[in-house]
Amino acid sequence: MITVLCGGVGAAKFLEGLIALDQSQEIVAITNVGDDDVMHGLYICPDLDTITYTLSGAVNHQTGWGLANESWRTMERLKGLGGKVWFQLGDLDLATHLFRSERLREGATLEQVTKEISDNAGLKLKLLPATNDKIRTKLELVHPSGETESTSFQEYFVKYQHKPIVKDVFYVGSKSASLSPSVIEALEESERIIIAPSNPILSIGPILAIPKIAETIARRRSDVVAISPIVDGKALKGPADKVLEAFGYPASALGVAQYYRDYISRLIIDQIDSNSIDQIESLGVRVVATNTIMTTIDSKISLAALALTSYER
Amino acid sequence: MITVLCGGVGAAKFLEGLIALDQSQEIVAITNVGDDDVMHGLYICPDLDTITYTLSGAVNHQTGWGLANESWRTMERLKGLGGKVWFQLGDLDLATHLFRSERLREGATLEQVTKEISDNAGLKLKLLPATNDKIRTKLELVHPSGETESTSFQEYFVKYQHKPIVKDVFYVGSKSASLSPSVIEALEESERIIIAPSNPILSIGPILAIPKIAETIARRRSDVVAISPIVDGKALKGPADKVLEAFGYPASALGVAQYYRDYISRLIIDQIDSNSIDQIESLGVRVVATNTIMTTIDSKISLAALALTSYER
Repeated sequence: MITVLCGGVGAAKFLEGLIALDQSQEIVAITNVGDDDVMHGLYICPDLDTITYTLSGAVNHQTGWGLANESWRTMERLKGLGGKVWFQLGDLDLATHLFRSERLREGATLEQVTKEISDNAGLKLKLLPATNDKIRTKLELVHPSGETESTSFQEYFVKYQHKPIVKDVFYVGSKSASLSPSVIEALEESERIIIAPSNPILSIGPILAIPKIAETIARRRSDVVAISPIVDGKALKGPADKVLEAFGYPASALGVAQYYRDYISRLIIDQIDSNSIDQIESLGVRVVATNTIMTTIDSKISLAALALTSYER
Repeated sequence: MITVLCGGVGAAKFLEGLIALDQSQEIVAITNVGDDDVMHGLYICPDLDTITYTLSGAVNHQTGWGLANESWRTMERLKGLGGKVWFQLGDLDLATHLFRSERLREGATLEQVTKEISDNAGLKLKLLPATNDKIRTKLELVHPSGETESTSFQEYFVKYQHKPIVKDVFYVGSKSASLSPSVIEALEESERIIIAPSNPILSIGPILAIPKIAETIARRRSDVVAISPIVDGKALKGPADKVLEAFGYPASALGVAQYYRDYISRLIIDQIDSNSIDQIESLGVRVVATNTIMTTIDSKISLAALALTSYER
C-alpha cells in the first residue's frame, strides 16, 4: 500500500503518474477537506472532485479543475436572480454536489459518498477524505486597501483570487477531527507515504493539523517523501509561495523542507533548485533533484517512480 | 386588497386572469408550502415557483410547471452517478433553488426570499408563503400491490405519479405554524378572499390547517368565494377528485362545497355541473355557474371578474 497526502490539481497530476506506473501496490489518496464548503445548500469538496475528475479523464484541461464540455446555464440564470456567482458551478459539476449533498443528508459519511463517486468514475485508487468530520480552513486576510477580513478558503482563493496578503491560517475543527478505520489503516500499513506537490500550508496543512495524522506521519518520517510544489522560488499554481513567506518560510524548496522537516526524511525538488540541496540536507532531509514539472504523462510517471525509489537514496 | 389562497398550476392560471383584469386593488397570493421539500440539499417550493414562472411568462406551457427552454444536463449526469432523479430539476430551474437555499442559509425568511424572486420576475402581486414555518404534507398511501407507505407530497405526486390510494393526509407542523404580519394583514384587511381552483385537500388543505388562518377565513366566510377545481366529476389536473373521495366527499362540485362549507359563502362551479346547484345551496353556499376551464387569457379574465362580482349575487 502506498499513501499519498493530497490537495487538488498538483496531487491529481501526481496520482495520474502513480496509477500509470502500474506498480503492484494499492494506492490510497488521503485528501484535504479544509477547502470544503457549503454553497447554496450544496456540499462542495473541491480537492476530492479535482482528483476524481482528473483521474477519470473528465477534467477540464484548460483550468485543471471542473469538467470538460461544461455549460453554465444554471449560473447564468442565478446571476440574473442576483445570486452569488463568484464560485462557479457548472451544470455537469452540479450533479456531483447534488449527489453528495443528498447522500450526506441520508446519513452517509463523506468517505462513503466519496467511494460511491470514485467507484462510479472507475478510479483505480482508494480516495479518502482526511476525515469525515468538518475541518474548515479560515484565513485572516489583509486586502490591498489595508482592510482586514476573516474568510473561508474559497473566498480567499476564488472570490479574491488569492490576491490579499494572508496574515494567519486556522484549521477550524482539526483538533477534534477523528479518523476513519480506512485512514488509520493507510497511515499505519502503507509501505511508503508521499506528500504530493500541493500547497504545504493550505492543502497539506489541514491534513497535518489533525493531531493523530501529524503524530503518525512524524513517527513514520523515515518512510515519508514530499515533492516540492515550489520551483525556482515560485508556486507552479496558486499562492503556495506567498503563503509560505507569510508564515516566515522562504518561498523556495528550502522553505518547503523547513515546513515539512518533522514529517519527511526525503524531499524531491526540481533540478533548477539544486543549489539548495546542501541547506536542505542539513535539516536532516535527503534530497532528490529531478524535473518536477508534470506536463506530459511520461513526466508524471517518472516523478511517481522517483518518489517510490527515493527511499533507496 | 384581494387575497387568493393558492396551490400551483390552477391558482397560477387564475392569478393570470386576476392580474390581467387590471382592477385597482392590490392582489395577495397566500400560497401552499405543504409541498415544499429539500431535494439534494436544495430548498424546493413547487407552488411558489409555479406561480412565479407562470406570471412572469417563463413557464413551460406544455407541462404547466418548470421553465420554458429548459435543459437537463445536471439531471442526466446525476442519473449517471446513480443519484435520485425522479424529481426532475432543470438546469435553469436549479438557479431558483440555489438562490433560495443560499438566502435561507443566510437567515432570510421564506417570505423575504419569495419577495426577492418575485420582484426579480416582475410579478404584479404580493406572493406570500402561507407561513415561514415548516409545514409538510405527509400521506399514508396504499400501493396497487396492497403495500402501504408513508410518504412526502412529492413522493406521492411525482415519484408515484399520484397512482396509489390516499388513506390519510397529515399537515405536519401546521398546528404550530405562525403567520407573518403580511399574511395576517392580507387575511384581515382584504375586501375579498378567493380560494383558487386548486386541490382542496392537498393544496388548500395545508393552508387551512394553520389554525389562525382557518379561524380567520371562517369568521370572514361572507367575503370568501371558492372556485371548484372539479368539473363534471373530474379534477382538471391531478388527483383532487380521488383524494376528495378518499376523504368521504363526492368527487364533484358538491364535494368541494361540502369540504369548504365552513369557509365560503359562495362557490363558482362549472356550468356543466349546474344540476348540483340546489344541493350546494342547501349547504348555505350561494352558487355561480360559468365556464371555469381556463384555456385562454379571456377565459381567465372572465373567471377572475366573476369571482369579484360573485358577492353581489
